[in-house]
Amino acid sequence: MRIAVLGVGLIGGSIGLAARSRVGAEVWGYDPDERVRAKALELGALDHAVGHVRNAVAEAEAVFVAAPVGALLQTVAAALEAAPADCVISDVGSTKQLLVAAGADERFIGGHPLAGAETAGVEHAREELFDAATWYLTPVRENTAGVLFERLHRLLVAFGARPVAIDAETHDRMMASISHLPHVLANLLVAQAAALGQAAGLLGGEDSRRLPAVGPSFRDATRVAGANSAIWTDIYLSNRDALIAGIDDAQARLEAVRGRLAADDAEAVRAWNEDARKDRDALLGAGLADGPVHELRTSVPNRPGVIAEIALALGGEGVNILDMALSPSEDNRQGAVALWIRGDEHAARARGLIAGLGFPVAEA
Amino acid sequence: MRIAVLGVGLIGGSIGLAARSRVGAEVWGYDPDERVRAKALELGALDHAVGHVRNAVAEAEAVFVAAPVGALLQTVAAALEAAPADCVISDVGSTKQLLVAAGADERFIGGHPLAGAETAGVEHAREELFDAATWYLTPVRENTAGVLFERLHRLLVAFGARPVAIDAETHDRMMASISHLPHVLANLLVAQAAALGQAAGLLGGEDSRRLPAVGPSFRDATRVAGANSAIWTDIYLSNRDALIAGIDDAQARLEAVRGRLAADDAEAVRAWNEDARKDRDALLGAGLADGPVHELRTSVPNRPGVIAEIALALGGEGVNILDMALSPSEDNRQGAVALWIRGDEHAARARGLIAGLGFPVAEA
Repeated sequence: MRIAVLGVGLIGGSIGLAARSRVGAEVWGYDPDERVRAKALELGALDHAVGHVRNAVAEAEAVFVAAPVGALLQTVAAALEAAPADCVISDVGSTKQLLVAAGADERFIGGHPLAGAETAGVEHAREELFDAATWYLTPVRENTAGVLFERLHRLLVAFGARPVAIDAETHDRMMASISHLPHVLANLLVAQAAALGQAAGLLGGEDSRRLPAVGPSFRDATRVAGANSAIWTDIYLSNRDALIAGIDDAQARLEAVRGRLAADDAEAVRAWNEDARKDRDALLGAGLADGPVHELRTSVPNRPGVIAEIALALGGEGVNILDMALSPSEDNRQGAVALWIRGDEHAARARGLIAGLGFPVAEA
Repeated sequence: MRIAVLGVGLIGGSIGLAARSRVGAEVWGYDPDERVRAKALELGALDHAVGHVRNAVAEAEAVFVAAPVGALLQTVAAALEAAPADCVISDVGSTKQLLVAAGADERFIGGHPLAGAETAGVEHAREELFDAATWYLTPVRENTAGVLFERLHRLLVAFGARPVAIDAETHDRMMASISHLPHVLANLLVAQAAALGQAAGLLGGEDSRRLPAVGPSFRDATRVAGANSAIWTDIYLSNRDALIAGIDDAQARLEAVRGRLAADDAEAVRAWNEDARKDRDALLGAGLADGPVHELRTSVPNRPGVIAEIALALGGEGVNILDMALSPSEDNRQGAVALWIRGDEHAARARGLIAGLGFPVAEA
């Protein structure tokens, strides 16, 4: 089987490695950068490396376009022009509607593996990159050839991935909701807090102690604020329709909770918060285990081994820590620790164990 | 000195311990729960435990109300009624405007220590809970008696805390921005993603692999979604005016970024994202934790061990050297040393330590 990879970075290179090793395919690679081609050959990601798309895709049964966002549309077009009539062409870009609109060719099926950073180079490529990773495919009901979809699907399974068919609009809305909107809200939170801090004279003054202390919820919520502008400007704009829809939805939800607060309606606020708890459990897979997630907070002296001590105590009693967040105090002598534990029983056991170590613990 | 603590949980108990041990105060405690009173006495958090507010506050010079949110207003009122005319009364609640409005008594000064969870019990109380913790105070310009404010401030410093005066409105807006709004946005994100997942048939099916894969940005942004409803319903409502202001501000910011996206204006999107990066740095970077960086310059004889001597002196006092640069003089007999220290306090401490070693030191 002959496969072409157009654009040999982390993802393209990993496709090459997986295709050669797990499918026994002959992999032809195109990259505009001669050094990248040489490196890919050296790493065994390709059998042949070429400097023209048409040479790579000739006689291919499957083509993966793994070019950067800016070169994606034109590379897909070049592949469709030069590839055989019975070849399936896919891509790995993080938004899909644009490509669906651009390529009405039945040979094209959009794809998006949830693995690897788009910007990393071929030197980080590895055969197992896609193991157990969701790999979205966006076939078009009226258009996609069944035999080509099946071929692509089986290839992805052979790569170790879990292909999931999804319509392009839903995919882009989902990415907007679970990735792009969280970035927008993180930016919003830091902007609001900074504006408030400046207005109140809390920032920029000489006395650092007048700065507001920031808890773990703010740190977590703003961890991605101001992410790499070179990358994120492209991401926001490449998915702007879906992101705008996500923003409109967010506005409506803010309006709704604002109304419940303004009405001083405790029962409505409680119900809204309970719904969020259920939604979070459903999204993050609570259904698979036993019971709600508890957030425990403790504070510990900032010395080596304390976190290990807690982790070992819980692990020794079979209590799994789903997630943890650590925030040092202002003078760095203490730390606030948040731990997420699934299940009433395990959470209670964790509370007992942490208290037994001599640390105060409470549920947030 | 006689101090009263009304409500003996984690915070009230820790106040009792610190007041007894560090101030040498005689501490009277009130709690409606007899077992809590017994436990507090057993732990040494109180000298006397009583079941009536008036018995606790009689002859007190300072009263700390550390009751749960639901009982806060009435406990403050009871304290004001029974306390002596020259007694200062404060509280430890996480929102302040309500109390300012309720208590026009010049003896009352709102407070909010950023330490400890409000829900933990007295069994976790410890003397050092407030060490280096910011403790907001909300005196009222027209009203607060200077002598009472000074007494309260000195007590908090003796407890190990860092008192920071702030007006109640700013305090509540800040808490809304850095704690309550992040919770609202976390709830919003899971609600949006869950609604989308259900609409697309991605949630609720039997095949768990069809659940959308969720990246770290979503996990971070939604970690506090659906936090304990019993606690958070009270928190949202107790600060609802400030939270509504925060929501209105969020709406305006979403509208602004929506406009930049709709206009497909890459430069405007990039600038917005860059601003967020700067805001985040200002909030979480140098500022928040430790203050501005100071550059200290000294000159030392060029002999072995001198730099180590300085480094050991600073390290022994907990002063971290961010960076250093050494420039020998032309005759190589002396060296100019530049040291970068974060935080006013640490920089001042470093100056003292270096001078104590016999070297001239100045800020660049």
